[in-house]
Amino acid sequence: MTDSRQLHFNKVAIIGVGLIGGSLAMVMREKGIAGTITGIGRGIKNLEAAKRLGVVDSITQEIEEGVIDADLVVVAIPVMKTADVLKKAAPHLKTGCIVTDVGSVKHEVIESAQTILPKGVRFVAGHPIAGTEHSGVEAAFKHLFEGKNCILTPTNATDKAALEQVKSLWLSAGSNVVLMDAELHDWTFAAASHLPHIIAYTLVNTVALAGSEGFDLLKYSAGGFRDFTRIASSSPEMWRDVCGMNKGYIMEMLDSFQKRLDVIKKCVQNSDLTTLQREFEKAKKFRDSIAHKHHEGCSHHGHGHVHGHEHEH
Amino acid sequence: MTDSRQLHFNKVAIIGVGLIGGSLAMVMREKGIAGTITGIGRGIKNLEAAKRLGVVDSITQEIEEGVIDADLVVVAIPVMKTADVLKKAAPHLKTGCIVTDVGSVKHEVIESAQTILPKGVRFVAGHPIAGTEHSGVEAAFKHLFEGKNCILTPTNATDKAALEQVKSLWLSAGSNVVLMDAELHDWTFAAASHLPHIIAYTLVNTVALAGSEGFDLLKYSAGGFRDFTRIASSSPEMWRDVCGMNKGYIMEMLDSFQKRLDVIKKCVQNSDLTTLQREFEKAKKFRDSIAHKHHEGCSHHGHGHVHGHEHEH
Repeated sequence: MTDSRQLHFNKVAIIGVGLIGGSLAMVMREKGIAGTITGIGRGIKNLEAAKRLGVVDSITQEIEEGVIDADLVVVAIPVMKTADVLKKAAPHLKTGCIVTDVGSVKHEVIESAQTILPKGVRFVAGHPIAGTEHSGVEAAFKHLFEGKNCILTPTNATDKAALEQVKSLWLSAGSNVVLMDAELHDWTFAAASHLPHIIAYTLVNTVALAGSEGFDLLKYSAGGFRDFTRIASSSPEMWRDVCGMNKGYIMEMLDSFQKRLDVIKKCVQNSDLTTLQREFEKAKKFRDSIAHKHHEGCSHHGHGHVHGHEHEH
Repeated sequence: MTDSRQLHFNKVAIIGVGLIGGSLAMVMREKGIAGTITGIGRGIKNLEAAKRLGVVDSITQEIEEGVIDADLVVVAIPVMKTADVLKKAAPHLKTGCIVTDVGSVKHEVIESAQTILPKGVRFVAGHPIAGTEHSGVEAAFKHLFEGKNCILTPTNATDKAALEQVKSLWLSAGSNVVLMDAELHDWTFAAASHLPHIIAYTLVNTVALAGSEGFDLLKYSAGGFRDFTRIASSSPEMWRDVCGMNKGYIMEMLDSFQKRLDVIKKCVQNSDLTTLQREFEKAKKFRDSIAHKHHEGCSHHGHGHVHGHEHEH
């Protein structure tokens, strides 16, 4: 069932009406997928903005109240809070209800859902690969997911019909839906996303510390550094959660990074420039191969800027 | 003397007619600063392209021959080769000749020049903060330096008139000229540029190694990673040289990075999410402050692409 005209939920509850939850609500409204949409959240200001902007029909700070009678519940909050939220919601979910999430770590979320949710409530784990530097419902826009991958990580226990409906939902949002094993997902993202974010944060703190010696060291070299460290502007809360929930694979990647770093440090210390150049060449070759494969820099959306690919030496 | 109409060299020799050397030659031609321009280099193909494109008037692979009678010699080669090139050129430079360079490390270059160049030849150390991912004369364009900083690092021994002329040259190219102590320059760039490049290379190699286990792990998460690691496409040869020539400060920064990384690793290992969040928040705050201060993403030039500032979790 990939035709959005077939897809309809009388009542949708969105727990966490931020950038992701808000944008998905906008899609459902636009496509006539939702009868009514209830926004549930902790911050009353953001909720009121969601109501005012017409992203949701009604708002509440009480999960227990908001999910009553919902046919679809979308959990779009920092991933570590998922279990707590599911616990609050569980006794109030109606039989047949579909619950889905958007968290960046999947294995532990699936385990929680299997333990917490009652029989008859159908959980589908999801991870849309989309976002901007901005957060909150005011940053939401209905095109956010267009052309982006959305990964769903069903298990053998996942209800097939529910999976199809969640898949339809993301196809309606314009996403490319990919099915993947949850463990493979968590390992992949530890390498390609979690490690880079952690390293970016670490690098920024190193440079900030050097800069605190009193000289504005970024004034003359900020471009490359800014590009490199843009992801250090991501939500600290979200990344803290990811580190907590994907600890095993992240430690594996950190250990692997440490080994490569030790090689580089030894080369610099010993002025072994031959090995150093070989390491750099390997990296350039790999980097250039992915830039080539994945159409670097061709996407743009409502939050896009124009800027040059500059290098500063 | 900041008026380019006053600035004229009968003969200019450019050693290394690549992106930087070629672009500077274009500026001198455009502004009528150079009578004739001789391009000197190792690669005959690149030299012939420089001649064909009209970037230079004549070409030679022999430094000794090319610099004869030059009033200005621009050394625009990988920085570690500077001393060798100066040694070859030195006996053939005419008295009063100005020699300048564009290397990313300054202290050691200045020491070499002071030792190697004969009395009466005036050396001015420079570092234009400009570049693209591309290299070679075919990537050169006359607007490359516009609005960019060019750092000059004169010493007490630097000839004042020569400094003024090199300053005029970069002002003619549209650059903002900054005078800075050479040691401060090298320390600053170790932190804000050399360390980030080394870390980017290291990160890319870590991820490449994980990817070599057979799964295309970047397919679903490549955007943020690509942004983060764009600088890993820089010239391995150049960065090898930088590591060789700025070893002291780079080791200092690598040690400092290691200390921050150890904190993060311990937090992840011990699930100390409070400290982790604090580290991430510190980084975000610093990163956001520089993004704000330095007009992120507003520059664009001939090599610019359009792309969104996306985050992928």
